[in-house]
Amino acid sequence: MKTKLFTILLVFLSFFSKADDGYRLWLKYDPIKEQSIRQEYLGYFKGIDLQTNPTPVLKTALEELGVGLNGLLGITQLPKNTQGLHIKIDPNLALESYGITEKSGQITLVGGSDKGILYAVFGLLRELQQKHSLKNIAKTEIPKISYRMLNHWDNMNGTIERGYAGASLWKWFELPETIDSRYTDYARANASIGINAVAINNVNASARLLTKEYLVKVKVLADIFRKYGIKLFLSVNFASPKLLGKLKTSDPLDPQVQAWWKAKTKEVYEYIPDFGGFLVKANSEGEPGPQEYGRSHADGANMLAGAIEPYQGIVIWRAFVYSPNPKGDRFKEAYNEFKPLDGTFNKNVIVQVKNGPIDFQSREPFHPLFGAMPQTPLSLEFQITQEYLGFTTNVFYQSILYKECLDSDTYAKGKGSTVAKVIDGSLGTNPKLSMMAGVANTGSDRNWTGHLLSQANWYAFGRLAWNHELTSETIAEEWTRMTFQTDASTLQTIQSILLKSRDTYVKFTTPLGLHHIMGHNLHFGPEPWLEKSARPDWTSLYYHRADSIGIGFNRTKTGSQALELYKPEVQNKWNKPKTCDLDYLLWFHHVSWNEKLSTGKTLWEELCHRYYSGVKEVETFQTEWQKCEGKINQTLFEDVKGRLAAQHRESLNWRDACVLYFQTFSKQALPSPLVKPKRSLEEMKELVEIYQLK
Amino acid sequence: MKTKLFTILLVFLSFFSKADDGYRLWLKYDPIKEQSIRQEYLGYFKGIDLQTNPTPVLKTALEELGVGLNGLLGITQLPKNTQGLHIKIDPNLALESYGITEKSGQITLVGGSDKGILYAVFGLLRELQQKHSLKNIAKTEIPKISYRMLNHWDNMNGTIERGYAGASLWKWFELPETIDSRYTDYARANASIGINAVAINNVNASARLLTKEYLVKVKVLADIFRKYGIKLFLSVNFASPKLLGKLKTSDPLDPQVQAWWKAKTKEVYEYIPDFGGFLVKANSEGEPGPQEYGRSHADGANMLAGAIEPYQGIVIWRAFVYSPNPKGDRFKEAYNEFKPLDGTFNKNVIVQVKNGPIDFQSREPFHPLFGAMPQTPLSLEFQITQEYLGFTTNVFYQSILYKECLDSDTYAKGKGSTVAKVIDGSLGTNPKLSMMAGVANTGSDRNWTGHLLSQANWYAFGRLAWNHELTSETIAEEWTRMTFQTDASTLQTIQSILLKSRDTYVKFTTPLGLHHIMGHNLHFGPEPWLEKSARPDWTSLYYHRADSIGIGFNRTKTGSQALELYKPEVQNKWNKPKTCDLDYLLWFHHVSWNEKLSTGKTLWEELCHRYYSGVKEVETFQTEWQKCEGKINQTLFEDVKGRLAAQHRESLNWRDACVLYFQTFSKQALPSPLVKPKRSLEEMKELVEIYQLK
Repeated sequence: MKTKLFTILLVFLSFFSKADDGYRLWLKYDPIKEQSIRQEYLGYFKGIDLQTNPTPVLKTALEELGVGLNGLLGITQLPKNTQGLHIKIDPNLALESYGITEKSGQITLVGGSDKGILYAVFGLLRELQQKHSLKNIAKTEIPKISYRMLNHWDNMNGTIERGYAGASLWKWFELPETIDSRYTDYARANASIGINAVAINNVNASARLLTKEYLVKVKVLADIFRKYGIKLFLSVNFASPKLLGKLKTSDPLDPQVQAWWKAKTKEVYEYIPDFGGFLVKANSEGEPGPQEYGRSHADGANMLAGAIEPYQGIVIWRAFVYSPNPKGDRFKEAYNEFKPLDGTFNKNVIVQVKNGPIDFQSREPFHPLFGAMPQTPLSLEFQITQEYLGFTTNVFYQSILYKECLDSDTYAKGKGSTVAKVIDGSLGTNPKLSMMAGVANTGSDRNWTGHLLSQANWYAFGRLAWNHELTSETIAEEWTRMTFQTDASTLQTIQSILLKSRDTYVKFTTPLGLHHIMGHNLHFGPEPWLEKSARPDWTSLYYHRADSIGIGFNRTKTGSQALELYKPEVQNKWNKPKTCDLDYLLWFHHVSWNEKLSTGKTLWEELCHRYYSGVKEVETFQTEWQKCEGKINQTLFEDVKGRLAAQHRESLNWRDACVLYFQTFSKQALPSPLVKPKRSLEEMKELVEIYQLK
Repeated sequence: MKTKLFTILLVFLSFFSKADDGYRLWLKYDPIKEQSIRQEYLGYFKGIDLQTNPTPVLKTALEELGVGLNGLLGITQLPKNTQGLHIKIDPNLALESYGITEKSGQITLVGGSDKGILYAVFGLLRELQQKHSLKNIAKTEIPKISYRMLNHWDNMNGTIERGYAGASLWKWFELPETIDSRYTDYARANASIGINAVAINNVNASARLLTKEYLVKVKVLADIFRKYGIKLFLSVNFASPKLLGKLKTSDPLDPQVQAWWKAKTKEVYEYIPDFGGFLVKANSEGEPGPQEYGRSHADGANMLAGAIEPYQGIVIWRAFVYSPNPKGDRFKEAYNEFKPLDGTFNKNVIVQVKNGPIDFQSREPFHPLFGAMPQTPLSLEFQITQEYLGFTTNVFYQSILYKECLDSDTYAKGKGSTVAKVIDGSLGTNPKLSMMAGVANTGSDRNWTGHLLSQANWYAFGRLAWNHELTSETIAEEWTRMTFQTDASTLQTIQSILLKSRDTYVKFTTPLGLHHIMGHNLHFGPEPWLEKSARPDWTSLYYHRADSIGIGFNRTKTGSQALELYKPEVQNKWNKPKTCDLDYLLWFHHVSWNEKLSTGKTLWEELCHRYYSGVKEVETFQTEWQKCEGKINQTLFEDVKGRLAAQHRESLNWRDACVLYFQTFSKQALPSPLVKPKRSLEEMKELVEIYQLK
């Protein structure tokens, strides 16, 4: 025994220093070991031929180039050399666009502006990180969306609404004097994937940020972001004139209110000359808004738009509104509210619409407002943070979900009128005001996103906002190659898990188009039996409508008629239970338990099978992941391994809770060969209750 | 200009890697450069002579020894060598005690148990880190307090009540499968300063942790802590029998309730065989407790004590109770409630009393319960997190405050009956059940505590809990030498700031014995005008009682008579305005604005001078700190520099708000040469309001 102890001493564990804690994200820049590719690259970077004048953003670009080349290739200097890397600006190009070309052994980066150069540098480094040959490269990149934006739901006290990766990155009490180095690291990560806009605070907005006390703090962030080509936006509280200005009203048609916002906007621009604009959640879930004064959303938005127009700022007005009507259908609320306002918004207003009509569920039909407001630019809002997608214990590669929405055909102007084309302006709306917004999944966790594999969602969001035509496969490949230095087979294993993960998650939580049956308030785990809440549309029963006959929400013309909000071609896809894609079935139909589906199984059988196979697929992820041991950094391996085990536990909870609960309606045994859950429904209810305790 | 850009490229900034981010705390182990001391040390560690059998804790001790020797001296192995470092256990010593001796060039570590060896290793490394010669060392260390404990006010959702350094370290959703390496780093930091007990959750306790679902998570932490000699405790919700057991009551005298707690306690011990016990906040600030059933605190505590006694566990019952009586004096509440219960508690109950009678103010007289419950072991509770002490933007070296309380003479058994002696048992109470508890200041911030200098408070708490006879100067010297690798003069500069910091903070916030005049709810900044709250004793007016005549709370026999709770000798110190220590003056007296004080100034003049000199002293800290530039790690330097600048801004806010507000009562100009604040009282009120917005 004593001999063993001596060996322990020989190990000399290195506390406080882990080889890789995930902090570096996809910007690892570990040295390239392959000699041939290394030699090729070294040939291009003998020097630099800079044909443009320095600006702060260009300086950033050159710094980033230096960091990347130093890490990947060990290059420590780039002397002036007309045969080296050429960098130039071409004013004929769109401002943020860029090109990378190789000719006669020389690389040229060209940008439409310094921002274009910044993106070119990251584009170049991305090629290097993936060890792609640059020979004959001739790449031209033009972003399809002009505002590629993160929305942070960060509160002033440092918490993050629906955030699961620690505390807010913004240290309000310490600002402006103490400047966390993470602010810069955050900005560069965004810039590397083309994100150029950030709203830093919760849409359930505090008025604090509009005060001088806080504007000096906000300015610090804006100054850092600017160097990375990122504009800062603020979520604003519509009642600010009352809260801060001590006015008696916040009525958007009141001259004093208008004057207050004008003065306040002017003040904001004194601190942040390139301030992006205001993001507003109004008359939604208790937030103040123009309707309190009998005014419309357009009245509210246009008043703010008028105040900010002189500075080229914009107003992002969220369409996420719904009133608590037990007889209604939340699916239709935003449409009914906003569709009639089409054409009434100022030209610097963009209406922000969630990808689906309910609320960031694991699968939703595209929001019916897309294509329905031809005279209004619409921003597409995704939720990167996994409120309904398993927090940070579940792998859920969201590119699949994003693409599904982006590629959905609205038929607004005939076949091919995808959501992507609606938002990028190519269907005819204002192309300068195109936007994709993602609710950020970042936090103070060392690896930024909690689940290591959730870094891929931040990455995918940025990449798709830049180019929605990229495939999920391409993005997964880029991300894994940049994140893990390992062999092709291991990369393939990881990509394969990513690509399957969304489908798996849907199976064990909300198969066949079930939705909104999660735990109350916390939104963790299953609670399909949730019957009472502050609002009827916050319960589960409102959505699944299970009874002795069947299950699902009838949204056809015999039901809520929500399906009729879509174009006929879309309706035709979904309006018959027999032909409706099974993934959307219970979104639109109340289907009898014994209905035979296209799979050959009855609805009840198919439901059970999906819940069970979802769990099995998580087990497969675990087995697959195990293959990565020894092939990737051990800390990262262990971390994901642990999370997959947690996901397995949670998948069993979802499966058992939902199958047992829905069984009380179907009154049928589980189809063979599925084995009955070991736990009772009562036990599942008790388990869920634990998570509701304070 | 272009040439400049090339130099930028030569710099190759290293993103994502900072030389020192504070994460390593005082356990840096950077190589010792001084050759003479290095040579001396190398002579002692040619090998190891281990005369004891391995245990998990001993294994930890040897690992830590390895880490330390590797870092400090580059030693990579310690072969078996009878002339090397001797390590042995002496069963005659107290379990946690240890000795370090040098004789004929050989070092011997002896411990009363494996825990003693662990502390001996850290004790030895501490000497090495401070570069003390070990020649003729003959150190014997016996901890004066048996439970040296941190209380975490961490909530289940990852927030920390009154925490300002990020999110909770415990990742409840990820446990038990994912095990953050920080759990171990946290445990070793504690062990290095002798902390051997940790209550992991908020005293406003969730019942969740007592469920099987969570006990498997808690077990992971307990298993890690155990290796570092740390026992895990849980804060429990007194209503758990109702909340979890579905009983109709939580009445401690109800047999079903008792049976429930017995069964639950048995279950807890099945997961954690060395579980420490329960910490309870009952009938306090809305928490449930025995008084709901007409039972006393002793009834409640003893019921739990009975359940846990078979396992050698203990119950820590908090005395922090006070009822909202506008005519009363919160100062007296806990005393009146608990003093009559002396002698009625089971022997495994310890009553936990905050250092002062109100609530962790920057200076309080010692709590009158100390010395007043001779038949009851009392735990002394400090608050390391800076709820009332400037969050993480103010330097406040708390050792000064701790010592002031520990050294206060209660006269309980005549002169010399200090608070320290009351709690360490040397005055005659149960010496096996002695405890000092500190409300933790740790969080997910990379440097653990937000303000780098606040690491010194965690350190000081541990060191004083081990040995309350250490001086604040010694502890400051240890901490700075271990934290900064720099010259003697710079160390002196930092120590000097630490040692002055408490006095400075008191001056610009609550001079002359003012207390509880901080911002509402948030407790940030000043709000002396706070008149209305949910409870009268949550306002500021309740405490400062300023009027046209004077200011202060008359607690003498003509007032609330709270002073009479102390022994006559203590009363004599404070009962006359003329002789009362000025630092406590307004704690006990309502003093007229024109009263001439021992300083030669009137009360109004002295008050103003203290506010102003507090701000000046912060400016001195800034000037002094500037001297550290280039002498310590630049990142650490910048971080503290920023926080000192924030502190200066806040000190001006406190000064202006308080002076202007109290001036509305004194109706006097500021004494010359003080210059009137530039801001008006209205402006200060508006500023404070901003921080009350959501």
